[in-house]
Amino acid sequence: MDFQEKVRKGFYEQSFMSFLGAEITNIEAGFVQIELPFNKNLLQQHGFYHGGVVATLADNAGGFAGNTLMSEDEQPLSIEFKVNLLNPAKGEKLVAKAKVIKNGKRIKVCEVNIYGILEGNELHCAVAIVSVIATKQEL
Amino acid sequence: MDFQEKVRKGFYEQSFMSFLGAEITNIEAGFVQIELPFNKNLLQQHGFYHGGVVATLADNAGGFAGNTLMSEDEQPLSIEFKVNLLNPAKGEKLVAKAKVIKNGKRIKVCEVNIYGILEGNELHCAVAIVSVIATKQEL
Amino acid sequence: MDFQEKVRKGFYEQSFMSFLGAEITNIEAGFVQIELPFNKNLLQQHGFYHGGVVATLADNAGGFAGNTLMSEDEQPLSIEFKVNLLNPAKGEKLVAKAKVIKNGKRIKVCEVNIYGILEGNELHCAVAIVSVIATKQEL
Amino acid sequence: MDFQEKVRKGFYEQSFMSFLGAEITNIEAGFVQIELPFNKNLLQQHGFYHGGVVATLADNAGGFAGNTLMSEDEQPLSIEFKVNLLNPAKGEKLVAKAKVIKNGKRIKVCEVNIYGILEGNELHCAVAIVSVIATKQEL
Repeated sequence: MDFQEKVRKGFYEQSFMSFLGAEITNIEAGFVQIELPFNKNLLQQHGFYHGGVVATLADNAGGFAGNTLMSEDEQPLSIEFKVNLLNPAKGEKLVAKAKVIKNGKRIKVCEVNIYGILEGNELHCAVAIVSVIATKQEL
Repeated sequence: MDFQEKVRKGFYEQSFMSFLGAEITNIEAGFVQIELPFNKNLLQQHGFYHGGVVATLADNAGGFAGNTLMSEDEQPLSIEFKVNLLNPAKGEKLVAKAKVIKNGKRIKVCEVNIYGILEGNELHCAVAIVSVIATKQEL
Repeated sequence: MDFQEKVRKGFYEQSFMSFLGAEITNIEAGFVQIELPFNKNLLQQHGFYHGGVVATLADNAGGFAGNTLMSEDEQPLSIEFKVNLLNPAKGEKLVAKAKVIKNGKRIKVCEVNIYGILEGNELHCAVAIVSVIATKQEL
Repeated sequence: MDFQEKVRKGFYEQSFMSFLGAEITNIEAGFVQIELPFNKNLLQQHGFYHGGVVATLADNAGGFAGNTLMSEDEQPLSIEFKVNLLNPAKGEKLVAKAKVIKNGKRIKVCEVNIYGILEGNELHCAVAIVSVIATKQEL
């Protein structure tokens, strides 16, 4: 199983991703992209995407970006992440782009940028830094 | 409208909270508690609550804890948060307890602890620090 | 060598600690306390302790709190930390109190609170969360 | 007083910067660069620059990058920052490069990258995200 198949499989085994309606749309070595179309269930009280939705994409994109650089028997486990919410998250979909900025043996550190796509333009909603550990154990 | 009513109203105006099935179960000055019963839609690939679900509770509990100390015309807006995932999030429900540790005029800083309730026992899943700004503007 | 001796030795091998004038004043399993007396070299432009001084204590206290729970051949390495500056850092000394909140096999997570001691009273300056990895390798 | 003069003045009014030996070497709208030459007082127990030194540069570079976009009567105040230590900090000097990624009215969010310069090559030591508030009050 190549890393792209492994990442895709892991992604879709998460019930929460299909519940939200998220898709993984690009998988490269050290990079993944996740997209989430607008859905009226995902909002906070002002009609923007909920900060938790944004954080979910950050966590998940970071984890799987890290996973692209792990061996076949390793699983990604986010140990911590920080999200800065820069602008209201709005638009016809959200896109999270995660890249590995430190490919440590055990710890991968990823930077994730999340954008709202508003009439085709990217609006920068959030930046996140995610630390992911490679684990061989069943959790 | 007292602060408890204001917080409760804000909480339930978020479509994402009812989509997840979360409830706000305690509202005091400088403190809120949110609970989320188990639901098979909320999981990651190993069967634990998704890290994004944990982060959502952290963000939301922190924001509304901050809101308990704001004036009636102020709205809470999370500007950033950091989550450390300490243990696998499992159990019959998740409970997030947020308290304000700095009640600044504009910025409230909250510490949030998230627990899985497993056969009645609290398992410490995560700790988060959330910065919330009080805003009077429409976002 | 017991853990207290190991921690004390590691602490004082750091040239930066003696340059600042910091002392480690309490070492228990899962807890350390560091103190730093006032010194006019440690300030920012408004006469308070510099945020970097506060962060230094947070990083160091967290790392050595983690170290108290590591085996003799393991060294602590901070992988990331977040500091929230809650109040201006002032007083006759700074005190950082770090406790381990997750004693993972590889990763220890510590919460650190930093106080300015002003006429004997603790003023809460900052809270930090520090992730520390146990490493056996020479760095 | 233009913003470059204001930033330079604020920077050098910090006793901690001259104590460390740091210089501000580039000031543009939304960007600053700080450099710190090697000095045997700045080290941790393995002979690398101390994590607190790295964090100090992150905090300071972020704060002054934010300051470049503030009005003349506003002062920068870091409210929180997160640092990920990616590689051992070594070399003949450290360089911190901070850019504003969100120029909010009140809150500026900066990304800071810190490099060790080793025989002229940049080694990526750390990434930090810093939130800075513009304040008109005396602190």
